[in-house]
Amino acid sequence: MNNKIKTLSILGSTGSIGTQTLDIVRKFPSDFKVVGLSCNSNIELLKKQIEEFKPSIVAVFNEEKADELKVDVPVYKGMDGLLKVAVMGEAHTVVNSLVGSIGVLPTVKAIENLKNIALANKETLVTAGQIVMDKLRFHKTNLLPIDSEHSAILQCLQGEKIENVNKVIITCSGGAFRDKSKEELMQVKASDALKHPTWNMGAKITIDSATLMNKGFEVIEAHWLYGLDYNKIDVVIHPQSIIHSLVEFNDKSVIAQLGVPDMRIPIQYALFYPKRVFNEGLPKLDLINVKEMSFKEPDLERFPCLAMAYDCGIKGGSLPAVMNAANEIAVKYFLQDKINFMDIPRLIMEMIDKHKIVKNPSLDEILDIDKRIKEETEKLILEK
Amino acid sequence: MNNKIKTLSILGSTGSIGTQTLDIVRKFPSDFKVVGLSCNSNIELLKKQIEEFKPSIVAVFNEEKADELKVDVPVYKGMDGLLKVAVMGEAHTVVNSLVGSIGVLPTVKAIENLKNIALANKETLVTAGQIVMDKLRFHKTNLLPIDSEHSAILQCLQGEKIENVNKVIITCSGGAFRDKSKEELMQVKASDALKHPTWNMGAKITIDSATLMNKGFEVIEAHWLYGLDYNKIDVVIHPQSIIHSLVEFNDKSVIAQLGVPDMRIPIQYALFYPKRVFNEGLPKLDLINVKEMSFKEPDLERFPCLAMAYDCGIKGGSLPAVMNAANEIAVKYFLQDKINFMDIPRLIMEMIDKHKIVKNPSLDEILDIDKRIKEETEKLILEK
Repeated sequence: MNNKIKTLSILGSTGSIGTQTLDIVRKFPSDFKVVGLSCNSNIELLKKQIEEFKPSIVAVFNEEKADELKVDVPVYKGMDGLLKVAVMGEAHTVVNSLVGSIGVLPTVKAIENLKNIALANKETLVTAGQIVMDKLRFHKTNLLPIDSEHSAILQCLQGEKIENVNKVIITCSGGAFRDKSKEELMQVKASDALKHPTWNMGAKITIDSATLMNKGFEVIEAHWLYGLDYNKIDVVIHPQSIIHSLVEFNDKSVIAQLGVPDMRIPIQYALFYPKRVFNEGLPKLDLINVKEMSFKEPDLERFPCLAMAYDCGIKGGSLPAVMNAANEIAVKYFLQDKINFMDIPRLIMEMIDKHKIVKNPSLDEILDIDKRIKEETEKLILEK
Repeated sequence: MNNKIKTLSILGSTGSIGTQTLDIVRKFPSDFKVVGLSCNSNIELLKKQIEEFKPSIVAVFNEEKADELKVDVPVYKGMDGLLKVAVMGEAHTVVNSLVGSIGVLPTVKAIENLKNIALANKETLVTAGQIVMDKLRFHKTNLLPIDSEHSAILQCLQGEKIENVNKVIITCSGGAFRDKSKEELMQVKASDALKHPTWNMGAKITIDSATLMNKGFEVIEAHWLYGLDYNKIDVVIHPQSIIHSLVEFNDKSVIAQLGVPDMRIPIQYALFYPKRVFNEGLPKLDLINVKEMSFKEPDLERFPCLAMAYDCGIKGGSLPAVMNAANEIAVKYFLQDKINFMDIPRLIMEMIDKHKIVKNPSLDEILDIDKRIKEETEKLILEK
């Protein structure tokens, strides 16, 4: 095998980020080789990916589906399966595009096994930011963000010093319901959100974008990724999603990264980092075609999740994990039309309010809290 | 004297860039020391600057005014005076904020005397780009742009490789007359232009901005500064002047530099390069306050100077010097209300059309052509 080839295992390969990661791999066959794949339950697509990319092993999280999959490569299942793919010896880099807190443990185990991480899973840093950053430093491995916003910040910081950063400004499309009144927000359905205005994303993240919880996650991620205090992290609504984030320096100069909203751009950047590589398949930004960009302040009254995320981030400890767990269950039930949109922040707030913060929680404590809060939130929903 | 202090001689210290450069020097007295100053004729202001900054020598271009100036430091006059300030032994960096082709020779002589250059004078690179770039390489000195657009490009290129650049996109306010029809442009007066919408600038550059010739100059400057073919340099109209320019890379990611339109930001960047330094006196960009940014294509029919500049840049040799000389005279007479706005491109075109291009002109040839074309353009205007 070519020495310069980068071997990848991809967690969540059938999802939106996973399939777009494979688009990049397909484009650069002499730069990347897929050695592991995993999915939740979409074994039809996984089978096709196995045929095309010929990984050494695969994992299927859903155990029944795992049993159904008949292929020539070893198939592992459940969380153990994900961990197998995350730590496999052959992999240089683990692309973690899992959705939800199931993504946390695979990231941590991958780092402990000296893997580099390309991270799309938000919950990794939201719930276990301190642990993950400590492990990255200890094991001297790298974590590169796939998120368009954090990729933008990383790109803006090239050739710059973090101590010269006044603040980062994370842009936000505003989500599917950005123009709805508070009354209308009581009535919206998940199906209304699932055609998100600018980005092509999975269901969970589309709802998180609509509540601005996704932006709240990104604020917490930025805190960990770039070591910035929360008062140095701003959010601005920018419906066109052309500027993916900005960095203001101490000399009042602002650097921004822009592009057509296409996740393959940040994915390619993370995979090749720090190199930029020509890809004629990616779309060019045409400002004349864009015509106009606008900016406004996020409305924290209609979208309280963003304010909650700042608050949980600042208070720290186990609180962000609580927020995340409650959100995960609330979104699950909203997607099933069993609760309304404004119940999401209400449920999260209820779980946050009664939580006694554990300072410096261990990974086990975080995972326990995640499990417990999910059960309690579910109970709260089903009791009503 | 502190070893780390940077000694500056400032050509054109009483103009817009000169006075703003002194604002930065005033702010950082332990980083910069002014050793030379020069002005055209504003000796009242020069006198105050001498008292405050205590340079070792000064120059006054206007010889009568030079004779009137009574100060404790040696006063030199005319082009010889400018050159004295440009090459003085004490100066580490020469800030060239002269307006017009009189700025060319001082830049060249300063480089030959191993000075670093902070360049606001557009004509240096427009008329003698090849010579200046060759001399910078030969003498191993640096030239840093003060122009907001080229400073933006330089900032976007930090930590990046020039071979990964697909193109640079220079933004343009559109100038004072951007919304005028072709018919209205026949009637506009210099006084209408001199309240330029966004930037606070001198008279010559305000008219050059209104004709888009200034943007044409910047296209040619970008060609030399960054070694880019003309087909890799775009111009986009952006009336708010918040994005100061952008760089598109080969992976379709675009990096931009933004800021409040305040020349002190790029001036400080050039003076401290590559360091960024905190300055609470500079204005912060507030995107929420900006609200909207717009972009459109430049109209080359109403503003033919931009197309001419591309054409002259591509044909090269002595042609950009011809364009510049004709423009300098045309603007001079437009400022005196002696010709109309659309005469500016017409006169330039006439001079360009009849010029036989000298390939690889020497500096003497360029300066001769500059002189001759200015005389011919003047004659053409006065004959009518």
